[in-house]
Parts: sequence; C-alpha cells; structure tokens
Amino acid sequence: MDQPSFAPLTPTAFLARAAHVHSERTAVVDGDRRFSYSELWTRARRLAGGLRSLGVQPGDRVAVLSPNSHLLLEAHFGVPLAGAVLVAMNLRLHPQELAEIVTHSGSGLLLYDSSLAECAVEVAKLTGGTLRLVESAASGDSGYESLLGSAPEFAAPVDDERSLLSINYTSGTTGRPKGVMYHHRGAYLQALAMAFHTGLQPGSVFLWTLPMFHCNGWCFPWAVTAAGGTHLCLRTLDAAVVWGHIEHDKVTHFNAAPTVLTMLSDHPAARPAPNRLTIATGGSPPSPTLLGKMAELNARLIHLYGLTETFGPAVICEWQPEWDLLPADEQHKRKARQGVGNVISGGLRVIDAGGYDVPADGVTLGEVAICGNNVMTGYFADPEATAVACPDGWFRTGDLGVLHPGGYLELRDRTKDLIVSGGENVYTIEVEQAIASHPAVSEVAVIGVPDDRWGERPAAYVTLREGASAEPAEIIDHVRQRLAGFKAPARVEFGPLPKTSTGKIQKSVLRQAAWEGRERQIN
Amino acid sequence: MDQPSFAPLTPTAFLARAAHVHSERTAVVDGDRRFSYSELWTRARRLAGGLRSLGVQPGDRVAVLSPNSHLLLEAHFGVPLAGAVLVAMNLRLHPQELAEIVTHSGSGLLLYDSSLAECAVEVAKLTGGTLRLVESAASGDSGYESLLGSAPEFAAPVDDERSLLSINYTSGTTGRPKGVMYHHRGAYLQALAMAFHTGLQPGSVFLWTLPMFHCNGWCFPWAVTAAGGTHLCLRTLDAAVVWGHIEHDKVTHFNAAPTVLTMLSDHPAARPAPNRLTIATGGSPPSPTLLGKMAELNARLIHLYGLTETFGPAVICEWQPEWDLLPADEQHKRKARQGVGNVISGGLRVIDAGGYDVPADGVTLGEVAICGNNVMTGYFADPEATAVACPDGWFRTGDLGVLHPGGYLELRDRTKDLIVSGGENVYTIEVEQAIASHPAVSEVAVIGVPDDRWGERPAAYVTLREGASAEPAEIIDHVRQRLAGFKAPARVEFGPLPKTSTGKIQKSVLRQAAWEGRERQIN
Repeated sequence: MDQPSFAPLTPTAFLARAAHVHSERTAVVDGDRRFSYSELWTRARRLAGGLRSLGVQPGDRVAVLSPNSHLLLEAHFGVPLAGAVLVAMNLRLHPQELAEIVTHSGSGLLLYDSSLAECAVEVAKLTGGTLRLVESAASGDSGYESLLGSAPEFAAPVDDERSLLSINYTSGTTGRPKGVMYHHRGAYLQALAMAFHTGLQPGSVFLWTLPMFHCNGWCFPWAVTAAGGTHLCLRTLDAAVVWGHIEHDKVTHFNAAPTVLTMLSDHPAARPAPNRLTIATGGSPPSPTLLGKMAELNARLIHLYGLTETFGPAVICEWQPEWDLLPADEQHKRKARQGVGNVISGGLRVIDAGGYDVPADGVTLGEVAICGNNVMTGYFADPEATAVACPDGWFRTGDLGVLHPGGYLELRDRTKDLIVSGGENVYTIEVEQAIASHPAVSEVAVIGVPDDRWGERPAAYVTLREGASAEPAEIIDHVRQRLAGFKAPARVEFGPLPKTSTGKIQKSVLRQAAWEGRERQIN
Repeated sequence: MDQPSFAPLTPTAFLARAAHVHSERTAVVDGDRRFSYSELWTRARRLAGGLRSLGVQPGDRVAVLSPNSHLLLEAHFGVPLAGAVLVAMNLRLHPQELAEIVTHSGSGLLLYDSSLAECAVEVAKLTGGTLRLVESAASGDSGYESLLGSAPEFAAPVDDERSLLSINYTSGTTGRPKGVMYHHRGAYLQALAMAFHTGLQPGSVFLWTLPMFHCNGWCFPWAVTAAGGTHLCLRTLDAAVVWGHIEHDKVTHFNAAPTVLTMLSDHPAARPAPNRLTIATGGSPPSPTLLGKMAELNARLIHLYGLTETFGPAVICEWQPEWDLLPADEQHKRKARQGVGNVISGGLRVIDAGGYDVPADGVTLGEVAICGNNVMTGYFADPEATAVACPDGWFRTGDLGVLHPGGYLELRDRTKDLIVSGGENVYTIEVEQAIASHPAVSEVAVIGVPDDRWGERPAAYVTLREGASAEPAEIIDHVRQRLAGFKAPARVEFGPLPKTSTGKIQKSVLRQAAWEGRERQIN
C-alpha cells in the first residue's frame, strides 16, 4: 500500500506527462530541427539508454558543453533518466576552468555541441585524455545522433527524491570551483513554482535567451515542459534575432538579466510585442527607465532573485494588485525589490552578525539567509565549504539587504567578493589571483564598478613590483588567457592601495569612490 | 546539513507564507466578518493552541460540521497545526449518518456552526454523550471565539509529510462509512496543481459555491491561500446571491457541478460577469448547452474529474490551444471528456478485467485506475477495503471509460453502485438498505436515472411482501428518516424485478430502460 500515494518527485515526470498529454505539440525548436513532446520523450529515453550503453552508471556525472540547444534540453531529461548527474557547464569559461570542473566533478563523459568542438578537445587534453567525448551537430549527423539511433529506451527509477540530479558550478568566494548539488525534489518543486508564478500554459512559447547552463536554466527546462509549452532555443543572443522570434513565433515568455533587456529595448528592431510578453528578470534590479521601456514593448516584468545554491529564483518580487494604484515612481521602487519567498520556498531572513533577524524597517542591513526545498544539499565533495555556507540549516547568501515593512527584501549590497556582470557571476578573488600571477604585479584589489551596459564589471587596482612596468592592456590580456572573457577587468589602475593601519587592503574605500552618488552598491 | 534542503510538504505552509506576503489582504469574507491573512494565520494558530488546551493530542481526530464559513476554513489550517486530523462532515447527512462518522473516526471533539446546533446536539446524543462540542456563531460571540481568545498560538511541526492530515468520509459500495485518508504531501501538491491549472493569483476572489466538506473543498482552501487570493464564503447556494457577488465583489473563480451551473445560468439574475470567470466543474460532463450559456456569461469552464480517494480532481480536461480551431460541436465533445492526469498526478490508466491497458481507440471500455501523490493512503481503520480498492498500488475508481486517441479519458458509465446527484455521491446500496428496512418491502433495486435538474437521481424498483401494501411516498419518507434527503429516490415503482436464471437481480435491464436513447449512462 505504499505505492498509490507515493511517487518520488522528479522533474523527468513532467516530460513523461507532456509526452502523453501534449504528444504532438512542438516541444523544442532549435534552428531547422524541431521535435514534438512525443519525440523529445523518446530521444531523452534513448539518450539515457545510450549513456548506459557507454558504461555510465547510476550516480556518474555527465558533463555537457553546449549553447541553448536540443542537446542541452535533452540532457536535462536524459541524463537523470540514466540515473546519472548532469553537469551543464558555462561555455563562456576558459578551457582551463572547464577542465577544473570536469576533474572536480569526476565527469567521465562530455556531450558537446559541434560549435564548441575545439574547446571540448582542449578540455579533454587538459584533463589527461581519459574524458570520453560525444559530439552533437546542428546538421543532425553526429556521434550523438548515432548514439540515440542505436540505443534502447531507458528510464531509471528514482528511489530517493533527494538524490543528486545535477551539479552546477560556481567559483564562489574561495576561487576554487564549487559544485552546487541539486536534488530531484527541489528541481520538481522549483519548476512548479516557476510555471505557476510566470503563468506558463500549453500555448506558451518560451524563448531561451537565458543560458540553460545557468542554474539549469533556473529550472525552466522542466517548468516549460510541465506546462506543455514550446522551447524555442537561441544559440547566441542577438537582439535582431530575438525581436524576429517575438514578431513571428508567438513568443510569450523569456528570462533575461536587466542588462540584456536594456540591450534588447535599445535595439532598432524593438517594437511592441504582438503577444503580451512575460519576462522574468534577475541579477540586478530593473531600473525605472527599463520598466517604462518594457511596458511600452507590451512586456510584463517579473523581478526574481536567487543564487545557484537556491535553484535560481527562490525569491520573487510578488506584485500586489493593490500596488497598481500607487504613483509610478513608487511602483518602480516596489518592483526593484527582490521580494519574498516563492510559493514553494521555505524561509527567507535578513540576519545580523549574531544570527538574529533585523527589524523590517527598510533601513537595517543584514545578510540574506534562505532555507527550504529549493536549497542545495551542499557543495559536491566539499563538506567544509558546505558547513560554512549552511552552518545551521540556513544558507547564507553573502548578499546584504534590508526588509521593508511588509516583509519584502531589498538588496543593498553584494557580498564584497561578487560582481554580477551581464548576468554572469564573477568572484573578485579569481580575478585577483589571475592578475597576481603576472610577474610585474605586487599587490592587487578587484572590485565591481557600475557599468551602463553590463550592470557591473570588474575593475582592478594594482601596485607593481619595484622596477617593474606593465600596461593595463597587458594585465587584461593576461587575465583573458586564464579566465572567461567576462571576468577580465574593464579597467586597470596603477598605484598604491588604501590600507588599514594593520596593513589590510581597504576595498571599501575603493568601492566608495567608484559608487559615489548611488543609493545602492549594486547595479 | 539535512535542514536547508528538506522542509516537509504541508498545506499549512501556504498560510504561513500568505500571512507574510499578503498580510493585509482580506483572506476570508464570511457575511459581515472578514479577516486578513495575518489575522487568519493568528486565528489558525490559536485554534491549534485551543485544541491542544482542550486535550487534543497529535493524531486525534477533530470533526467539523459547518457550511462554508471562516470556521471551516480555519479548521483546514488550525486542526493540522495542532497535529490533529480534520474530519469535515457533510452537513446534508442525516444525524444518524453523522454519528456513524464521528464514531468510526473516533472524533472526540466537534466544532460546529451555530446554524447546525440542533443537529450537533443530536449527533452528540447518538454517539453516547462523550463528544465534546464547540460552537461557532456568525455573531462572533461563542465558545469557539472564547477558545481562540484565550488560547496561545501553536504550530506543531510535521515530522512525516505522509502523515494523516484529514479523513473524508464516503459511504462507498459497501454501505458502511469509509474514511478516505489524506496526507500532507498530497494536499500540498494537489493544492499547487489546482492553483496552477485554474490560474489563481493574489488578486483572485474565490467564491465558495463548492462545499468545503467535499474532498476538503478539492484542496482549494489551501490552493487559494497559496495564491494569496480571497476566500468569499457562501453559506447556502442561492443563485441570486451568487450573481450578486459576481456583480459586486470581483469574483474571479468558483467551482460547481454542472447541475449547479445550469441552475445559475437559468436564473433571471444571470448576466455576463464583469470579471472573466474561471469555473472548475466536475461530477458529470458539461453539456454543449451549458458550455454555450457559460461562454455568454463571460465564464471559462475547466472540466475536472476525480474522487474522494484522489484528493478530488486528479484528472483535468486540459484544453489544447490547437482545439480552438475545431468546429464548435467538436470542441464541445472534447470539453466533455474527463481528460488527463493533472500536472502533479501520477498514472491514469483504463484497464480491462485482466488488469491490462485497453487500446486508446475511443471505443474499448475499461475501468479507470489512478496512482500518484494525490491518491489516499487508504481507508481509515479498514485495511480490507483499502486492499480491495488498491490491490496493486493503483486505485480502482469503479468508473468505466474509454481512452481517446491522444490519451484523453472519457467516462461512459459509472460503477453500477454510484449515483451522482447534484454533485453529491449516492451509493445505491445504502438506499437499498434503507428501503429494505421497511416492513412491507420484500426486494428492492436502486439505480440512477437521468434528471434534468440534478443530473442523476436514485430510482427504486420494489417488490412488496405477500399481502403487504405501501405507497411510493411512504417509501420515500421512510428513506428520508434514515438518510440525507438527496439520497431519497425520485420515484418508486412496484412490481417484479428482472432476474437472471440463477435469481440475480438484473439492474442492467432496469438501467437500459431508464437510459434508453442516450450515448452515455452518466449525466
């Protein structure tokens, strides 16, 4: 009698249902290729069978390197259906960084899109040559398709809904790669929450502007599938292409950081969408200017907040219908708040150094802490970092904010170590380490500075060694050879660094100067 | 490290969230009384504290007898917050039937609305006088309010999310009361599914036309709260009052059986709703006439199907946007189908006598079987009935249907023992037992017959004892003294019953005559 009322929560169940309910509807469009839900379900199970035939065992990690594509979408179902663990990697990372992730996660297999073949081969070389490679080509003629063509359909049962579903890598404050572990239960519930809050439906067309490798696309590979909507893959973010899809392909939903939205709304092709758009945005608060522009373009913005560790948006600026009556500038202020826990989230607190809740007065600053089903089980193979991040069951975000009367969170400052640039996280420490490896550099401090296009970008303050010399461009190039391009500093300034009497570098002094005249130190 | 990523699923979490996010919004309107979500949360926790102060222990059953009211809504949160089990009883039942439920469930306490004081006292008497009574009065001056006024706030943790949340009684095929056991996990997920599929939002106003004691109001006490909508209580179903609320109170959603919708749409006060209405309907398929009328009244109908054992609607006629292009009569046919599993449901099958799936050909009849998180854990204190209902993990509904190509279920016939009359279940066996207790009756067979107003009603075929005599009115009155009024037969016919050669009564012959010329034996 345990059976009827207990089915383990797993996001692959949404595809099983969609294949039944929405079998003939187009599930995914990727260039010239399109698959129905019935086909996607078959392909996902064949991928699972294919992985097993390649020797992938339950719990094994399978890495994927791909832009938004049918490959990466299929991997979100096929890898867990094999009983394996999905490691979707950020294609903007440097091959050396990717190799570290492959090694740290212990991935023995890499599925990659042919556009990244060179990088995949380099990663395989850097990891010692044991990494097995499977290529998927947009043409449809590739090792990946051969694998699917010959594999039996397979679907491993999920015995424990809190078992490992995926690992999403973030570099974090230590500069070492940290693998955030997602479980089936959390992804299932987070996907339901996303579908509910953004109003996804069978007729929805979801445009993949957000990279699927960011927090598993904030769980939208599963949310859109739960609703029976259509995934419209976008391999590169080109504003003209985005507007073309909105104009011609009945797009109803997409997700993007405010910097991306600014780029889109400023583009000459921008015009009011024929279908009302629902856009989930996060990473930084949308500005009043942006809110105004998006309203003119027939788009409704949902402001969300979360971290890799919280399956993406654990927090939503849930709009109160009563706020429609407020003056526009007050509405904009409300919309810029990060908000409250989403419908399936657990607790959201803002706490002081002693661990006590700060008053909800809109003034008192504290650290944001989150608990619930959409919090990671921990960092992969890193119990120490896990214990630091979740010392008492509450995940410490490192972000600083206030609670307004009414309980809505507003971020005021990031952890001093994090820069969010164009929706990508950059930890200052990794940039500092890269710069410090330059022979001319004696000391370095990196901070985030406001940037009109990217929200924030890293800026480096460098003291050179006695007698050494270097140009800013040389330092920037040095970083680019080691890290993803978006991590390279926007500018490098040379000179002595401000320090405390005990010799500690005072980043706060640098930040104050860089952010002068702004209400928040976050953009 | 188990804490951050595991919070037990319980529907009371939705109220905790709403009290934070929607604190000042009106949560419930019940006549002149209205409470905000902040107040509802306080009242629910005080009810929990009050129940504990009265000696209610974890796992104890607490019965409630009330029309749709703040009392019954509060009990849906306060009783589980006390760690206790909610037994919401059907106020249309006969006191003797209610007493059987109180006894079978072992409820030691009965919360009741003052409008049902006489009945509550009668139930207490019938159960031997040990039942503790707490009265709630619309005036606000009552034992219930005193209890809440003096009680400390309390909230028991949920250690096991599959523990017992509520028991919903149905008489079932045996004629004995069967207590369907709901668990926290199932109610949480089913509430999310209902909120998702019906598009509940913070601005929603949900009119309580559906009795909250039917399958815990199909989990809408929790679903509306999850969305932060407003519960508008309706104590009695009066068409003029319903239209008044729709006209003046911004109603966006309600649930009702097709018979109720027909009554509403035929009422002189019916006019197009100022806000688009979303109406979930079930119990019998909506007719083309009704669909046409409701569209004119600015209402969108969602057709659902389920049973007490499946937390209400485990099945939804999920509308495919592509169907909008079909001719109207084909659209009506699609809408009359019961449909597919909802977004959180497990499996839905139609099986033959051997337990094998019938083909999805729209023709082959089989029994509907359901499994998943929204299936009961079993019948309370009745492992035998549980084993019969769920012999292999799949709950056998007793309903007969076909699967159309594409996988949508359409019911064709009910289990021979069930009549659905005005949205209420009537099992023929209990009506037969009541009639058989009349001294003049020798043999009796009860079947459901079509009824323009109520969908179906019971009809009795009776053979009198040698030399005895009775009038139909006398038989009907005899039933009314023992059972709820809606279970009394619409008509009684005297004469010999059709039988097989082995002497078994052939109900099928009676049914064939009564349903002649109809496509389905279900209305």
